Order: sequence, then structure tokens, then C-alpha cells
Amino acid sequence: MKIAVLPGDGIGPEVTREALKVLDALALPQLTLFEGDVGGIAYKRHGHPLPAETLEMARAADAVLFGAVGDPECDTLPREYRPEQAILGLRSELGLFANLRPAAGFPGLEDLSPLKPELARGIDLLVVRELNGDVYFGDKGERDSAGGREGWDDMSYNEAEVRRIAHSAFRAAQKRRKKLTSVDKANVLETSRIWRETVIELAGEYPDVELDHMYVDNAAMQLVRSPGQFDVIVTGNLFGDILSDQASACVGSIGLLASASLGERTTEFGTFGLYEPIHGSAPDIAGQGKANPVAAILSLAMLLRHSLGRDADANRIERAVAASLSSEIRGADLGGSASTQEIGDAILRHLQ
Amino acid sequence: MKIAVLPGDGIGPEVTREALKVLDALALPQLTLFEGDVGGIAYKRHGHPLPAETLEMARAADAVLFGAVGDPECDTLPREYRPEQAILGLRSELGLFANLRPAAGFPGLEDLSPLKPELARGIDLLVVRELNGDVYFGDKGERDSAGGREGWDDMSYNEAEVRRIAHSAFRAAQKRRKKLTSVDKANVLETSRIWRETVIELAGEYPDVELDHMYVDNAAMQLVRSPGQFDVIVTGNLFGDILSDQASACVGSIGLLASASLGERTTEFGTFGLYEPIHGSAPDIAGQGKANPVAAILSLAMLLRHSLGRDADANRIERAVAASLSSEIRGADLGGSASTQEIGDAILRHLQ
Ligand SMILES: CC(C)[C@H](C(=O)O)[C@@H](O)C(=O)O
Ligand SMILES: CC(C)[C@H](C(=O)O)[C@@H](O)C(=O)O
Repeated sequence: MKIAVLPGDGIGPEVTREALKVLDALALPQLTLFEGDVGGIAYKRHGHPLPAETLEMARAADAVLFGAVGDPECDTLPREYRPEQAILGLRSELGLFANLRPAAGFPGLEDLSPLKPELARGIDLLVVRELNGDVYFGDKGERDSAGGREGWDDMSYNEAEVRRIAHSAFRAAQKRRKKLTSVDKANVLETSRIWRETVIELAGEYPDVELDHMYVDNAAMQLVRSPGQFDVIVTGNLFGDILSDQASACVGSIGLLASASLGERTTEFGTFGLYEPIHGSAPDIAGQGKANPVAAILSLAMLLRHSLGRDADANRIERAVAASLSSEIRGADLGGSASTQEIGDAILRHLQ
Repeated sequence: MKIAVLPGDGIGPEVTREALKVLDALALPQLTLFEGDVGGIAYKRHGHPLPAETLEMARAADAVLFGAVGDPECDTLPREYRPEQAILGLRSELGLFANLRPAAGFPGLEDLSPLKPELARGIDLLVVRELNGDVYFGDKGERDSAGGREGWDDMSYNEAEVRRIAHSAFRAAQKRRKKLTSVDKANVLETSRIWRETVIELAGEYPDVELDHMYVDNAAMQLVRSPGQFDVIVTGNLFGDILSDQASACVGSIGLLASASLGERTTEFGTFGLYEPIHGSAPDIAGQGKANPVAAILSLAMLLRHSLGRDADANRIERAVAASLSSEIRGADLGGSASTQEIGDAILRHLQ
């Protein structure tokens, strides 16, 4: 079993370190770790945010454990050298088309949510975001127009792309409460019309899943008004970017939420994927031991489950996290004073 | 002064009726009203959701008072005949490029918000959404691809389009708390890069306004986490569709929120515009006297202020609405039992 570890920028390295302590404690047989540079640090060391050797390392692995990218010192670079390009490059080069973002409150931590407690308690949803298409990866550029310089981006989805992500979403719904909401803007966009027609076609193969459709503006409204109505949401790259962040904000505890980006390639043990906390590089608190490593540790749990087929270990980690969250050890983001390392240590203790 | 009244579908006619009662009570001199069909009702009567005579009537007026469009019986029609096309057609034909959507809690009604009261109390923002460009009005269609049928939409903004809406937003900010947040996705989209560069260029002309920039995913997060940080938000058509609905949901009282869509043309008294409640046609409660007419009445107030230059009358209406909201007369949406007409009558009493 090979894991490529890409800690990246800002708080990425410090939270990844705690995840690696947890991994170490599991003492998995025949595990090899490789570590590579990605993001701003990679640009500074190798002149590119996603160096060829990092990409090769990721390709050769069964899974990628990713920290975070983003560095204010790189903000003025041309777009292709900026840290965020590394994550877009990994997604497209590795064919990571399915982004899974669970958003659920942690028992006892509902008060972290900006929503009223009765609404917060009901949140238990999964956003399945398409990650290889849409306006993200279409042709784009600048052209002249009667109104001066014009920026343009081609948005599109074809049936094969929609089918692939819709299958992932239907299957995810089958393992949950069997409700799937497909989000689009089919009253305006042709891209969405194909999206909706294709999802509807596929629904026949999943008679046990209840499917409905929602326009993205209404979905943004409903996520605030009554988030408890959602089980699995499937949507395109752009709408998924917005709605998954909104859903996380509704839960409230950004430092606690993990994500998986899965590809088509299967490994010996599961599906190839990249795993990352949803919080970013948080440069303002980097290197101060203030970051919460829970999201990184839960990303590791997702890695073990989806890419290495080690469900039992994943469950063990999740239970240890839950136990430590309900104990007294809390980081600054949860109103406590525990450091990154102390939180990691507490989770380690609960693991044993 | 000429007002084109387009009540439309569902609850549109019944809430518009209450707004007209209020207008009548103001006894404005030299006012002429014209009434036209729009939406599903127009399709049924004239074969088109936006008949030529309705468009002419709107063009000849100083302002349009709009109810709502949307009719489930029209859901299976080809897209160009669906009721929503009427509103898109009016926006483009009348050059209504600036959509103003104020979102603020009503004193005493903070408990309507799904957010915690301390967050809800802080909401007082204005979304300025561009309404004539973006992926809404670009070329679009279906093409063949290796992955089967492909839907595509061209997203774009040029400098002239951005400048026009940015000026509106800067000016709106000058009249409020002088803070402007421009929302885009400049880390991914060329459309957004031109958007951001153009907004930055213009900022020099408004040294009294504090400008910042936010990616749309972060904006969706911040609108839930701490909506009180926003004063004016300016953004494109697609992001504005999502964020303005999200902002309204944060306030909670959809039946109370109004909107203005302004064009470039000035009238003798102000700016030509179309005014509508943000709630839709709500076919499930249509014709039952359950709809809240407050949003329609507040839309009328916006009409008087922006298109007819009658600030004093607009303020009078807004005060009457506030007074009636804090009295005992409440509709079903606010936990009361007053009918559409009773709420309208109560506001009328407070007006006198
Ligand atoms: C950094 C950015 C390009 C990226 C995206 O938009 O996909 C991020 O917001 C995310 O959601 O992972
Ligand atoms: C009906 C629809 C086309 C419209 C839009 O997307 O603009 C609506 O959602 C709105 O915001 O007025």
C-alpha cells in the first residue's frame, strides 16, 4: 500500500503531521509513504506549484493525503503558477471526478453552527460534486468586443460526464437514506438541461433511490432554511464549489470537515483518491500550533475506507475523534486552548 | 406618470391587487395605469409568455409593477414558451441590467431567520446583481461530443458591462455604509478576471467606498457565518442569482422582501425599472388569500423611489408596513391568520 503525502502550504504541514501520527499508530502492514511538495512551497523550491515528480508520485500511489495549498506571497504570480493551480492540476491529471463532501453536525457541537440549534441538529448530508468538467475546464480566454476586453469561459457537460458522477451519487445515496437531490439551473442553461435529462435517464437503474431536482438558487435557499431535508446532493463543479462550502458553513465547524476526491482507477484495495481537509491553508495562523487537525485526521479515515478498503480502521479513527471531541481537549476554534499537537495526542489516546 | 402593471401567475394577481390599493390611497396626480398579461396566463391567452403588446406597454411606461410568473401547467412546454422566459425577456428587451435586492431583518421579526438571533439581527445588506449578461445571455446549445450529447453555454463579461453595474454598486454603497464586496471566481474564470480588474480600475473614482473582493464559494460561506459583515455585494448574473436567494433565506421572511431591476433609461422622474417581490408565484397557495402582500407593497415603494422620484411616498409606505408588521395583524407565513386582503387593509390603515 502506497500513500503519497502532500502537506502543502500554511497549516497543511502541521495538521498532516498529526494525521500521520494516527496512521503510524495503526501500524498497517506493508505501508509505504512518499512525501512531495505541492502549492506555494513547490513553486518556491521547484518553480511550479505541481512539479512533475509530485504528480508522478501521486500517480504511482494508491491514495494521496493532501494538506492545503495557498500562500499570500504567491498572490501576484500569473495564474498558472499560483498554488490553487496545483489542486486543479491534480484533479484533472489524476481523473479525480467525484468530490465527496459530507456535512454533518458533531453530537454536542451543534452550537458551533450559525443556524438555530433545531436546524443544526438535523444536518446530515453529503455533497457529491463533479470535479473534472464544467466551466472549470472548458476553453477560456480574453477577446476583444464592442465593450472592450471581454473574458469568456466555455461551460459544458456531456452525457458520459454526467452519467459517471450520477452513478457515484446514486450509489452513495443507496448507502445512506436513499434520497438524491440533483441541483442545476435547467431553466436557463443548456448544460443543465443535458445534466437533468441524463440524471433522469439513469434513475431507472436505482428504483430504491428517491430522486428530485432543484434549481441552484432554490438549493442555496433551502440549505439555510431547512438543511435537514437533504440526504445526498449531486451537482456540477461550479455549483458544487458554492453549495459544498455553504453546507460546511451551516455545520459551522470548518476545522472538522474532511473531503474525498475519487477517480475511476481502482487500486488493489479500493478506489484511487485524494483526501483533504476542507479548510484551506489559513496562512494567518500557520506555524503557531493553533490549527485543528481533526479535519486532516478524518480525511485519513476517508482514505483508509475508500482507497485502502480498511473500514474497521476508518471507523476506529472516527470513534476516537468523536470521543476526543466530547472530552475536555479543545482547540481555539472550539473555544478551548489545546494546541494542534495536543489535539492529535488526545485522539491518539482514544485510539488505543 | 405611467405604470405598467403585470400581475402574472399564481399569487401574483392577489398580492399586486393589495399594492394597487396602497397606490390608489396615495392619490398621486396624473398617474395612468396599464395592465398586461405575462407568464403562464399570457401563454394561455396569447400563445406567448411575453406577448408583443405587453412588451410595448412596459416600454412605454415609466415603471413596471410585476407580480410573479410560474405555472406548473406550463412545465412541459418547450423552454421558449415557459413563464420564466417572460422575465428573462423583459430584462434583456428593456435593458434592465441592475438588480437591487435589499436583505435586512425587520425589527421584532428576527426569529423568522433560520440563523441564531445575534447573527440575524446584524443582517442589513444589498445585493447588486448584474442582469443582462453572463452565462444567462451568451450563446448556448447542444453539440455532439465523444461523450454523447453535450450541452454548452458561453459565459462572458466585457469591461463596459462590468463598469456599468459596478458604477451602480459603488453609488449604492455611497448612500449606505460605504463598503462594497465584489464577488467572483477569479482564481478559475477568465470572465471573473476581467470582472475583478475592471472593478479595481473603477475604485479610484470612489475613494470614499471601501472595496474588497471575495471568491463566490467563500461568499456563500460568509453569508451564513457572519452576514453582518456585508454592506453592498456586487456580482454577476449567475452568482447573484444564488447569493441573493441565499441572503433572503438568511433573513427568513421571503414574503417580505422586494426587488428592483433598473435600466439605463431615465424617465422624467427617475430611472426606468421593474419592481417585483422576490417570492415566486407559489401555485400551491394561489387564490386562497394566504399570500403575504408585503413584498409586493414594498416593491411599490421601491418603484416610487427609483422610477417616480417620490421618496416621501416611498418612506410613508415603508413606515406603514413596519407599523403593521409590529401590530397584531400577521399572515400565515408569520404564524398569524390574517388574509392577503386583511394585511393589505392593515397597511392602508397605518398609511392614513
Ligand atoms: C482553490 C479553488 C480553485 C478550488 C475550487 O474552486 O475548486 C477550491 O475552492 C475548492 O473547492 O477546492
Ligand atoms: C426564473 C429564473 C430564470 C430567474 C433567474 O434565474 O434569474 C429567477 O431565479 C430570478 O432570480 O429572478
